Amino acid sequence: MSFNSFGQMFRVTTWGESHGPAIGAVVDGCPPGVTLSEADIQPWLDRRRPGQSRFTTQRREADAVEILSGTYEGRTTGTPIQLMIRNTDQRSKDYSEIAESFRPGHADITYWQKYGLRDPRGGGRSSARETAARVAAGGVARKVLAALLPQLEITGCMVAMGPHGIDRARFDAAEIARNPFFCPDAQAAAQWAEELDALRKAGDSVGAVIEVTARGVPPGLGAPIYGKLDADLAAAMMSINAVKGVEIGAGMAAAALSGTENADEIRMGPGGPEYLSNQAGGILGGISTGQEVVVRFAVKPTSSILTPRRTVTRTGDETDIVTKGRHDPCVGIRAVPVGEAMMACVLLDHLLRHRAQVGEGPRGRIG
Amino acid sequence: MSFNSFGQMFRVTTWGESHGPAIGAVVDGCPPGVTLSEADIQPWLDRRRPGQSRFTTQRREADAVEILSGTYEGRTTGTPIQLMIRNTDQRSKDYSEIAESFRPGHADITYWQKYGLRDPRGGGRSSARETAARVAAGGVARKVLAALLPQLEITGCMVAMGPHGIDRARFDAAEIARNPFFCPDAQAAAQWAEELDALRKAGDSVGAVIEVTARGVPPGLGAPIYGKLDADLAAAMMSINAVKGVEIGAGMAAAALSGTENADEIRMGPGGPEYLSNQAGGILGGISTGQEVVVRFAVKPTSSILTPRRTVTRTGDETDIVTKGRHDPCVGIRAVPVGEAMMACVLLDHLLRHRAQVGEGPRGRIG
Amino acid sequence: MSFNSFGQMFRVTTWGESHGPAIGAVVDGCPPGVTLSEADIQPWLDRRRPGQSRFTTQRREADAVEILSGTYEGRTTGTPIQLMIRNTDQRSKDYSEIAESFRPGHADITYWQKYGLRDPRGGGRSSARETAARVAAGGVARKVLAALLPQLEITGCMVAMGPHGIDRARFDAAEIARNPFFCPDAQAAAQWAEELDALRKAGDSVGAVIEVTARGVPPGLGAPIYGKLDADLAAAMMSINAVKGVEIGAGMAAAALSGTENADEIRMGPGGPEYLSNQAGGILGGISTGQEVVVRFAVKPTSSILTPRRTVTRTGDETDIVTKGRHDPCVGIRAVPVGEAMMACVLLDHLLRHRAQVGEGPRGRIG
Amino acid sequence: MSFNSFGQMFRVTTWGESHGPAIGAVVDGCPPGVTLSEADIQPWLDRRRPGQSRFTTQRREADAVEILSGTYEGRTTGTPIQLMIRNTDQRSKDYSEIAESFRPGHADITYWQKYGLRDPRGGGRSSARETAARVAAGGVARKVLAALLPQLEITGCMVAMGPHGIDRARFDAAEIARNPFFCPDAQAAAQWAEELDALRKAGDSVGAVIEVTARGVPPGLGAPIYGKLDADLAAAMMSINAVKGVEIGAGMAAAALSGTENADEIRMGPGGPEYLSNQAGGILGGISTGQEVVVRFAVKPTSSILTPRRTVTRTGDETDIVTKGRHDPCVGIRAVPVGEAMMACVLLDHLLRHRAQVGEGPRGRIG
Repeated sequence: MSFNSFGQMFRVTTWGESHGPAIGAVVDGCPPGVTLSEADIQPWLDRRRPGQSRFTTQRREADAVEILSGTYEGRTTGTPIQLMIRNTDQRSKDYSEIAESFRPGHADITYWQKYGLRDPRGGGRSSARETAARVAAGGVARKVLAALLPQLEITGCMVAMGPHGIDRARFDAAEIARNPFFCPDAQAAAQWAEELDALRKAGDSVGAVIEVTARGVPPGLGAPIYGKLDADLAAAMMSINAVKGVEIGAGMAAAALSGTENADEIRMGPGGPEYLSNQAGGILGGISTGQEVVVRFAVKPTSSILTPRRTVTRTGDETDIVTKGRHDPCVGIRAVPVGEAMMACVLLDHLLRHRAQVGEGPRGRIG
Repeated sequence: MSFNSFGQMFRVTTWGESHGPAIGAVVDGCPPGVTLSEADIQPWLDRRRPGQSRFTTQRREADAVEILSGTYEGRTTGTPIQLMIRNTDQRSKDYSEIAESFRPGHADITYWQKYGLRDPRGGGRSSARETAARVAAGGVARKVLAALLPQLEITGCMVAMGPHGIDRARFDAAEIARNPFFCPDAQAAAQWAEELDALRKAGDSVGAVIEVTARGVPPGLGAPIYGKLDADLAAAMMSINAVKGVEIGAGMAAAALSGTENADEIRMGPGGPEYLSNQAGGILGGISTGQEVVVRFAVKPTSSILTPRRTVTRTGDETDIVTKGRHDPCVGIRAVPVGEAMMACVLLDHLLRHRAQVGEGPRGRIG
Repeated sequence: MSFNSFGQMFRVTTWGESHGPAIGAVVDGCPPGVTLSEADIQPWLDRRRPGQSRFTTQRREADAVEILSGTYEGRTTGTPIQLMIRNTDQRSKDYSEIAESFRPGHADITYWQKYGLRDPRGGGRSSARETAARVAAGGVARKVLAALLPQLEITGCMVAMGPHGIDRARFDAAEIARNPFFCPDAQAAAQWAEELDALRKAGDSVGAVIEVTARGVPPGLGAPIYGKLDADLAAAMMSINAVKGVEIGAGMAAAALSGTENADEIRMGPGGPEYLSNQAGGILGGISTGQEVVVRFAVKPTSSILTPRRTVTRTGDETDIVTKGRHDPCVGIRAVPVGEAMMACVLLDHLLRHRAQVGEGPRGRIG
Repeated sequence: MSFNSFGQMFRVTTWGESHGPAIGAVVDGCPPGVTLSEADIQPWLDRRRPGQSRFTTQRREADAVEILSGTYEGRTTGTPIQLMIRNTDQRSKDYSEIAESFRPGHADITYWQKYGLRDPRGGGRSSARETAARVAAGGVARKVLAALLPQLEITGCMVAMGPHGIDRARFDAAEIARNPFFCPDAQAAAQWAEELDALRKAGDSVGAVIEVTARGVPPGLGAPIYGKLDADLAAAMMSINAVKGVEIGAGMAAAALSGTENADEIRMGPGGPEYLSNQAGGILGGISTGQEVVVRFAVKPTSSILTPRRTVTRTGDETDIVTKGRHDPCVGIRAVPVGEAMMACVLLDHLLRHRAQVGEGPRGRIG
């Protein structure tokens, strides 16, 4: 509670609209004593920043984060951290058309129906711009996690664009940073570039599947029954704009498996139990197993396209609409750093909740 | 907050273990004045009850619900409703083996690692038996929804068992109640019966995909940004035992679509805007559109199987385990009424949250 | 959230009406591994139990608590603990008069106005009987606190009955258990007995002031700004039936002090800082100082009296009402164990919240 | 949850430190469609603003509020409202002394003990400056209340300064705005001015009692058992800096009453039930009666005084401290608008929670 907050102990509240003066996030419950400055957060925002390739929106936002509270002499004090990002490239264009007509696939119509008014400038609150605030909050979470779980690594990548998935045999984590798609398969990335160029020229867009993995999560995070780690991850990812599906481990494909295929067998390794597979995606009964936590989510194609679409106006007239503007032809690309940020926030929240209930001392050991 | 509660205004807290004296749910925030008795809730429990066909566990539980508080002279008073279901068929079997060894695919190992102890009898808190409490709470939600949204219909069904999906062309809602699979395709149901018999004999199990739709949801339920209807549905469904993926509308397949295919076009109908498709699953920007809300989730195959699986013991010894007992060969079947119950609870919660913020009066109209 | 829960990490949800089959509490978030049985909780309930002297209601309730979930082999498992107390002495008397007329000073009228219906039997949900569930939950909290903060002592007592306060010079903690008033001043207790006999005979009742102190609270519990320890204590105590005022340390009298009188000076003692006074009641800036935490609250006189009072009926007719039945002439007496229970719950909740954010390791040291 | 938020449906999260770049509040859950601009909020901030008389701190802050989000074309959109107030008069003085020594009566020592670090500049987060953010949020709440409950009036005043209370017979609401004490008794105000001048010269300070009343609250706001209106008011007021006691209606004095004196009798008036007294302070069973809601709270004397006080340093050395700077000799004065703001926020939150559960339609009527 309420509507614009997530997390229980590490609690993030975001605010702001696409074309207002600024957007931001208040991070409450952050552990004290962690070194933190804008320089720790900015790199994550830069990864999400628009205009870095021809495959994302050409809006030019510096996305420079300012810390307005919650630190002293470069360390967190345990009090709320206000992260503010000024909007600098809100073009004073004419929004009268989308103020009157509802863009198919957008939240225009539902905001209108719910609230009886809406801010049409760039989508207002429903703009993907809000995700910058999440990424900033995720930057704080990552800094705290680096102190509390130094071995933790969170990595997001795009594993499908439209109908074209990567070849898992070519998965190369180092490749992710080398192409504009956060794609771990160089060959797929090259192919996607061609595809996306064609789609852009055709005034169309395309969806994507994002995968976020967390390596080094200790066993024991998450809790029955409605505080399950996977349930919170599902909500976190589904709350990202344009996401229509979330999977943990084998995900939807688990339905097609038999019990013998699905249950990950266990052997003893040098450091404790080891699993012979990871269909579970690192979570059993809502609690982390110590394996990689694996989440995938589907991002629908950008609804703002140059192809005319049938719609209605506020007065109930039928019309066609073409959404001009500087839009991402594949909004999934920039969802990669957003998914990582959500993973970081959820894991930290559960780490704090775990030590609230169970403490930091020894728990159940095996062997 | 905390771990065993869900919902904000219509808030359900479940409690109880598989082999304790009882399980139950406290329902807080229920609107007053709604007629409610055990007879309103029992039919939903009966649908989930084990032992109704050879395809579900043979455990024999009456699953008789008792209302211990919150009603007076047959109507809700607005105070907390305690729903209790006594456990009657906890066999006094020997749990020493699973108390020592961890069943692959089960929460045994993670509960142990998290808490340092666990109730091994029938899975304790992680038993699917907990879902009876959800179904009871869902029964209350349905009764309230019937008063507040009389046109609302919630229907769950199984749309795939293992790799075998239904044929959408044969979808017949009336068929759902006629076969033991809640399957809307009679032909598929017949085929599944054969398949599942074979799997049972082989000591194996299988997964399933469940679809829950809500027809008659008014536009405007749900809220940006972390109170999105789809985010709450995702958490709700993912919190059900054995669920590994959740989809809204086109779901994971949305990733493979182009923007022209995905964005549901809008025309005016006699009663307001009408959509020419429903890729969105009835939700845009986290807010209901008035179309059918469509959620699907994948249930992994039952992990309790008769095929020996490799595992380790608490003392770190490697061993093989066979999970005897009265287990569902396809636990997805009984997830159908559970998914419906979660849908009912989430919708009612959002209806109450909506009228908190926006009231009952007129909002944005179209035409 | 919602209405019948309190606490964030150690979260208690109570349910039940005075004359229903049972009342109870669900305790969620309890740390695992703590030994717990009914015998740990029952003594606290026995202290609150009615009918122990002629100064409390003559209703005869065994108030026997049953643990229905959340423990295994005598230890908490970390899952929700359902505590149930059956109602055994609900007299089948005629409630038609109070069902029609509103008793002054009672919640009859406000429940009716809010909900449009109410359970009139014994006050329904607004009965002081609900506090038994708090005391049971407090028993769990005390058991956990005994494990986590073994030096902690929580002591409640009655420091005024009507206009008659105790003499602080005669304060003797050992005396509290020796008289039916939980009064630390034997002489005052004797006087109160006479007073209360007279009031009972006159068909009247009287208020009281309760003081609860916690000795051994470590510094650092509580948090700015809306999670202050004193703010949570204020809400906890004010939520007890009939409480009209709450004070921390000097309390309302702090208003009459000068700055030199009020601010507690500090010196170094062998174990750290020591305060030369405790006007603050052990809390500065919402965070515990390590001194005794001191809370006082005023309980209004029982509104159920034999003196006729003017009121109105549901149909708007003016009438007089006499509240017969088995009522406490000084309901403040039985509020003592309730106040202690709330103190225990709040302290444990804050201890868990503290270790969530700050951990168990070293924090700011002095000297 | 978490620490810096209050309210459930109308939810306020404040952030910022005394000497950081800005402070502010995020208001979430605000109903849509309410006209709102900075000009609606500024007057309330101006009432709390320092430096308006010689009796408050001479710090010169413009306290100009900026709305950064949540409105469009002058109306609330239902999305989070970010209210920011820049700090403009943070003197670059030397904080080294209070960074090393703990000021008695301040949160210096507890922040240090809890977090292991603190922002010593002007008290950091524990500064009374945080209350400006509350007043801003209260301004939003008042604007919404004006739309939803036009008859509502919230009035705060100071009813005692040190040991000197007002004479209720001279209570004149119009007088409150005419003197620098928000005092409804002109004669008392004149006397307080003399007293406070003397105290200031003596390097001392004094406490105060504030009373906030709300007239026009409909019956039915608040909810059993832990969502009681009085419990939430108690927490809200106790969370204000320096508050040590909270009373509803008769408050602590209720303890000294007999049942016949305390229970407010009821007669029928032209518009419904009328009470012959208001010992209850407008709340029965945690739910508003329709009478005036009356809350009082005690503010301790300012701890920052020029009289030397004994204390210790971080290294454990004993020392004396004199707190220079621009401090309020009676911090209670500026607590008046803060108390009003908290009343507004709590009432609006409960109004929204009420319509969530019970709706806007007819409830229990009398007559």
